[in-house]
Amino acid sequence: MSPPNPSEIPFLAAVQGTRGRHTPVWFMRQAGRSLPEYREIRGSGSILDAIYQPELAAEITLQPVRRHGVDAAVLFSDIVVPVHAVGFGIDVAPGTGPVAQSPFRGADDLKRLPPLTHDLVDHVAITVDILSRELPNDVPLLAFAGAPFTVASYLIEGSPSRTYQRTKSLMHGNEALWHSLVGVLADYAIEFIDVQLTHGARAFQLFDSWAGALSPDDYERFVLPHSSRVFAELKQRHPQSAGIHFGIGCDHLLELMYSAGADVIGLDWRTSIAKARARLGESVTVQGNLDPALVLAGRETAIAGAQRVLDDNGGHPRHIFNLGHGVQPDTDPGILTEIVNMVHERTRHKGGSTE
Amino acid sequence: MSPPNPSEIPFLAAVQGTRGRHTPVWFMRQAGRSLPEYREIRGSGSILDAIYQPELAAEITLQPVRRHGVDAAVLFSDIVVPVHAVGFGIDVAPGTGPVAQSPFRGADDLKRLPPLTHDLVDHVAITVDILSRELPNDVPLLAFAGAPFTVASYLIEGSPSRTYQRTKSLMHGNEALWHSLVGVLADYAIEFIDVQLTHGARAFQLFDSWAGALSPDDYERFVLPHSSRVFAELKQRHPQSAGIHFGIGCDHLLELMYSAGADVIGLDWRTSIAKARARLGESVTVQGNLDPALVLAGRETAIAGAQRVLDDNGGHPRHIFNLGHGVQPDTDPGILTEIVNMVHERTRHKGGSTE
Repeated sequence: MSPPNPSEIPFLAAVQGTRGRHTPVWFMRQAGRSLPEYREIRGSGSILDAIYQPELAAEITLQPVRRHGVDAAVLFSDIVVPVHAVGFGIDVAPGTGPVAQSPFRGADDLKRLPPLTHDLVDHVAITVDILSRELPNDVPLLAFAGAPFTVASYLIEGSPSRTYQRTKSLMHGNEALWHSLVGVLADYAIEFIDVQLTHGARAFQLFDSWAGALSPDDYERFVLPHSSRVFAELKQRHPQSAGIHFGIGCDHLLELMYSAGADVIGLDWRTSIAKARARLGESVTVQGNLDPALVLAGRETAIAGAQRVLDDNGGHPRHIFNLGHGVQPDTDPGILTEIVNMVHERTRHKGGSTE
Repeated sequence: MSPPNPSEIPFLAAVQGTRGRHTPVWFMRQAGRSLPEYREIRGSGSILDAIYQPELAAEITLQPVRRHGVDAAVLFSDIVVPVHAVGFGIDVAPGTGPVAQSPFRGADDLKRLPPLTHDLVDHVAITVDILSRELPNDVPLLAFAGAPFTVASYLIEGSPSRTYQRTKSLMHGNEALWHSLVGVLADYAIEFIDVQLTHGARAFQLFDSWAGALSPDDYERFVLPHSSRVFAELKQRHPQSAGIHFGIGCDHLLELMYSAGADVIGLDWRTSIAKARARLGESVTVQGNLDPALVLAGRETAIAGAQRVLDDNGGHPRHIFNLGHGVQPDTDPGILTEIVNMVHERTRHKGGSTE
């Protein structure tokens, strides 16, 4: 069986600006705690234990595809997998997030960040191999990695932070060391995504979840060169792959983050889709941006919110429907399925015309 | 002794757009935990205990004026004082923030929010009376109150939140009840600030610290009418008073928040002063916006950051120097004093010319 034409794959059609059979939908954190079938097979222990078991990680990745009928699968993984794999000493504490017992404090700690060779993430390659066989032809697999700034913030703060004090102290107080650190983390993002694209992922998302804590000037000086290198290098190695750039509360960084070289910009609910298009130009594909809090508010509020997202997009073919942040663990998965069905129904397109 | 002309009071000159003797400086949370003299007299127990003792609260308010030579005093208070005073049942947990044992859940809870009569905040009036006598003539006292949305979020969530799930569920799920609740909270802000202005405060700040969690559409529909009423009513009762509107991460709401009727818009470091002026017009006075994380990064980084703020402002008379968020408890107060001196020296003006 030959692979379908990209225009028959809703996700890829939206990236290319052709009109697929409907607006594609996926949800950040669609694989995970909101699903009873996930809680059933996940077991206890760190999320990293599950990620390191290819059969289990593949099954968890497939669960939301089967249940919701989403238009993309996103690898069950975590942004700290590469730094964990090289042995920096980091884990994901349930209910807290990434925790480093011994945070990054100075130049000596660079020794704890050796190159990410592909053998260190063999398990991820195997998981992607399984998924490449098992996923439906029209549901691409998305790779993802943490962006250099966001991963650096976990290494430096040692745990989730509201102020990023130590991170900002390092970037302003020792700029050379800062660039060394995020340079290494950019390499990790490149290699980690490269493995996934090489084994069959079709697109990738770079998560700079906490970049919104920075001023535009600081973002441009301390972060943008490194995130740009990630997109440029991956575009060179995998010209057919699509790159998505996403952060929370990044309205004030929108132009800068898009300039890093992404094909798709991920928005949270603070930025209107129409306004983002006005600011970035018509050639951008926009992903987002339903507030996950509205999904928790019940069926009626969720569907009304999803309709406002469609209205904001105004029928543009360059739209990938998503939430504006990850699915909350206590989300009713039935409502997520209803959102997928509703978006598919209300955007169904019978022709095959292009823009 | 007759009171000085407003142009001789740097804070008021900046509000009016005349050039005072230097750019005025104050710091959000300048009174409090960063000062050893505060920790010495504060005692243990809830911050509300200290706020309810006029002599103590006045002394705490005066401490940073004496130590740093700032150009405004800000009443030692808390945004939950009004809801505490009416007996809703809320306290400030050290290290956590406002906590309501029994959060706002439905219409019945409106009964727990009776009118804020002035006798309930007598202690605040007495504190302001003391400060009106003791403050230097050219250091105005600033009143403040929590904005309806931010206070509502504490009542509904029961404790500080990252997602505002319950708050957003209520606003979208029961809009009538939402407007009843924030209507009452707007009344509280009006009455609480009114008491302070009546007893001698010269300006006020409305803190909508967490409004940045909202989309522009939600802010406009669920919040703006109520915050606008606060500014309009206070302008009517106290035409000479200046109103400051402030929130964290509100770049995407800038025009809306300014439209609420503030004279001064408070910025965090995410929004450049020059760009804010370009968006809002030349008649706005801008307050801000040094990242408090840079103050924690040591003297050199702090002073360099303060210089970038002055550069961003470009010598405009309508600027009040401040941080972009409150002083962090572990800040070195000596660096704050150095920032005050540096801003005063580098903006010193010998003439008395106006714009």
